[in-house]
Amino acid sequence: MSWNDLEGKDLISVKDWTKEELDILLRVAGDLKSRYYSGEELDILENDTFMMLFFNSSTRTRQSFEAGMSQLGGHSQFLAPETMRISLDREPGGGESIKDTTKVMGRYSEGIGVRLLEDKVDYYGQGTEILYEMGKYSTVPIINMASDIYHPCQSMTDIMTMQEKVGALRGKKIAVTWAYSPWVRSWGSIQSNILTSALFGMDVNLAHPEGYELDPDVLDLTEENAKKSGGSFTVTNEMDEAIKEADIVYPRNWMSPDRYEIGREKEIEMAGKHKDWKYTKKRQEELTDPGYLLHCMPVDRGNEVEDEIMDDPELSFVYDQAENRLHLQKALMALTMGGSF
Amino acid sequence: MSWNDLEGKDLISVKDWTKEELDILLRVAGDLKSRYYSGEELDILENDTFMMLFFNSSTRTRQSFEAGMSQLGGHSQFLAPETMRISLDREPGGGESIKDTTKVMGRYSEGIGVRLLEDKVDYYGQGTEILYEMGKYSTVPIINMASDIYHPCQSMTDIMTMQEKVGALRGKKIAVTWAYSPWVRSWGSIQSNILTSALFGMDVNLAHPEGYELDPDVLDLTEENAKKSGGSFTVTNEMDEAIKEADIVYPRNWMSPDRYEIGREKEIEMAGKHKDWKYTKKRQEELTDPGYLLHCMPVDRGNEVEDEIMDDPELSFVYDQAENRLHLQKALMALTMGGSF
Amino acid sequence: MSWNDLEGKDLISVKDWTKEELDILLRVAGDLKSRYYSGEELDILENDTFMMLFFNSSTRTRQSFEAGMSQLGGHSQFLAPETMRISLDREPGGGESIKDTTKVMGRYSEGIGVRLLEDKVDYYGQGTEILYEMGKYSTVPIINMASDIYHPCQSMTDIMTMQEKVGALRGKKIAVTWAYSPWVRSWGSIQSNILTSALFGMDVNLAHPEGYELDPDVLDLTEENAKKSGGSFTVTNEMDEAIKEADIVYPRNWMSPDRYEIGREKEIEMAGKHKDWKYTKKRQEELTDPGYLLHCMPVDRGNEVEDEIMDDPELSFVYDQAENRLHLQKALMALTMGGSF
Repeated sequence: MSWNDLEGKDLISVKDWTKEELDILLRVAGDLKSRYYSGEELDILENDTFMMLFFNSSTRTRQSFEAGMSQLGGHSQFLAPETMRISLDREPGGGESIKDTTKVMGRYSEGIGVRLLEDKVDYYGQGTEILYEMGKYSTVPIINMASDIYHPCQSMTDIMTMQEKVGALRGKKIAVTWAYSPWVRSWGSIQSNILTSALFGMDVNLAHPEGYELDPDVLDLTEENAKKSGGSFTVTNEMDEAIKEADIVYPRNWMSPDRYEIGREKEIEMAGKHKDWKYTKKRQEELTDPGYLLHCMPVDRGNEVEDEIMDDPELSFVYDQAENRLHLQKALMALTMGGSF
Repeated sequence: MSWNDLEGKDLISVKDWTKEELDILLRVAGDLKSRYYSGEELDILENDTFMMLFFNSSTRTRQSFEAGMSQLGGHSQFLAPETMRISLDREPGGGESIKDTTKVMGRYSEGIGVRLLEDKVDYYGQGTEILYEMGKYSTVPIINMASDIYHPCQSMTDIMTMQEKVGALRGKKIAVTWAYSPWVRSWGSIQSNILTSALFGMDVNLAHPEGYELDPDVLDLTEENAKKSGGSFTVTNEMDEAIKEADIVYPRNWMSPDRYEIGREKEIEMAGKHKDWKYTKKRQEELTDPGYLLHCMPVDRGNEVEDEIMDDPELSFVYDQAENRLHLQKALMALTMGGSF
Repeated sequence: MSWNDLEGKDLISVKDWTKEELDILLRVAGDLKSRYYSGEELDILENDTFMMLFFNSSTRTRQSFEAGMSQLGGHSQFLAPETMRISLDREPGGGESIKDTTKVMGRYSEGIGVRLLEDKVDYYGQGTEILYEMGKYSTVPIINMASDIYHPCQSMTDIMTMQEKVGALRGKKIAVTWAYSPWVRSWGSIQSNILTSALFGMDVNLAHPEGYELDPDVLDLTEENAKKSGGSFTVTNEMDEAIKEADIVYPRNWMSPDRYEIGREKEIEMAGKHKDWKYTKKRQEELTDPGYLLHCMPVDRGNEVEDEIMDDPELSFVYDQAENRLHLQKALMALTMGGSF
């Protein structure tokens, strides 16, 4: 296949792309990173527009997509859906239909990114459904900038970073572990990471306290991916068991499946019973091998992970990982939005 | 006259431009559309700035102006006047004067767009007055991005779209009709449409229930325009009468003149008595000829118009019309802001 | 020294730069202004990104930095820190650390501007401390876009404007005087002006009613600067005394040191006792020589200064001064962000 075959393709979940397509994405990301460091000015998406629709707020995602378009010679629009009168429930009188909004945005742009988490829709999963619905109507690619289920730009960046740092991923061990924080985070980054790490042949250990189970469909798909790729997938309720001999540790807070029934305060109280779920220097030294730190950020320093690891340039991947968002997403936009290479 | 003569010209109402000037605008819009589809990269307004001052929120207008500047090699600033401390009442101590705000914005940009509807000023018409006041102070063009009275970028786009779709407009019949929706829309798009359609020689039929009369000055001007152009202008309280044999139907909700006395709830209740004011497939088939759908969007599907018409690519102009905002406004900015063609 | 030596340098206070460095900044600003008027398109910061972090709102600063980046071929991101979950108090669980936020922003951009006034931090001075802290972590320049203590982009623009208008500043007399307004303004612009005017050898007369004393450290530094440069610095409680024979008058409201103890209403009431502190035509004619108007804007017309002066193109520098923000800041970004000249 050629790069051009990716023109017009949506990226809503990593599962919608073949392994070969994802490998092209990684290769182009690496190439664009090199060209950035060589000081080359690019006009791959000159004068083009990428629309960013943030139903939920963002730091890195917005900054990296917007800087990425600038580096490619184009422009990102930072849109506020709350002023756009979009109807997510599609009753007459309720707002503009998703179909109309999507079709018109496609007339003004070469690509559309959407962030839509579970708290802005009626039920878990509907955010992702709406992205697929937009994909159906859209004449330009729909890019998932984090939905309730998935965060493919993050997980492909995780892969890019790990490949840069430890080489081929087959047989490498990653521990993806719940960690204490009162921040009550969504599932997208974690779920996309395990899915994708398994697809790239890693041994994936998922760990969390009882009561923090993730989406069973995602777990099943991770299992399948591991089988296909020759990797493995285990789930445990013991953090120490998961990180034992791990090459890479990803300590991150997430919410329980009951989050929206029990409310935020109760959720924080529940998390507070597991303050020992923290990636400490002691754990790194005694259990992992070597236990490089991977994290999508923001990091809750002192809760999820100790500063001693976070600030160790030998152990912590996090700033390079954050930077790679930029290059991975440039590659994604360049490929799907018809860039002139 | 030459294109350069339009440099520095404001567009606050279509009536401020001669027919010859408007024809140039349409010609350049068509030209820029062709060049866009040919894939040509333009640098007509390279590194230039267009300031967008939205006192009221926007979807299409913001997206299309911003994408338009990107396509021309320049940049749009999306400004939030609520953080700008502008004094609309100009008492000492009340905020920065309109004069100072305007003069300084002109030092940082090549053009300024403003949206200012009736709910942000003291009385209907004051929004437009403020735009003319800005025009007086400004050294760069002031573009009306929708005011309480006018929406010239929309109505010139309507003309562009109709010309593309049905050819010369002289003698063509357009029905501009009130339609039910609880959305309580402003008058600008409708008023600019009838004014401009009459100016281009169309037979304009305006229809609305009693109690939804538009601005009498606009009606008079529409009458005048029709006389000058050889078109016609009629007003009726029967929807069916207006759309009879219409080439084009524009079904759109608008508020009553009493909107700000009676309040939003009462206004919606009043509109609810006219739910039969809807552009239906039945009406299209039985009455119009052929009754193409024109609409500035957003469309209240199921209220203003049935999906069967909205989704019929033969009948519905709306997505192409929305796209033409982009090309029309690029032409407008290129001409008035001193673009290098 | 060469221009390249300024690459990577922060500008948080004018005192962090040598006089020689500031002179380079002024020279490049003048050069970029000429090139702008000659119609030259620049690609000095092509495809580069400047991040703007406004903890406090802005009019001119945002517009001029954003337009400046556009004119240099790059792009500014207008970021809303309130959606960025930054922890200014840096407790675990409180938000993302300043270190992490800064380091990641530096991966996506070539420079970072920050506005952070006293009302967003715990005490006067902490805003500036946080900028210095960001400077410590950042791999790209940190530009002060107004802090609680300083506003160096404004004060260097003041110098640029005065040099353009009256030539060499040594021995010229500037009166920086408190003026009545209910606007209760911060100290940054005024404090930076006196510091910088003294550094450039001017005779600086500061005047305010009792109770409006500025930061004693800034007064000391102004005194020092005056000594070094051969200028002078006096403080008085009589407006007329200060403006006597002044070449330039800068009449501007500011808050008392008790502002945050006594509250806004009380502060306005207190200011109301000094409504005679106004730069009037009478004062200009009877006292100054010639008393050109300098002001960072927004101007409270009728309170701080009379329209007769404000609107006199011979006397009022304010619109040219506002424009110079653009050129001065382009020079600053071009020099510190590694522009290709």
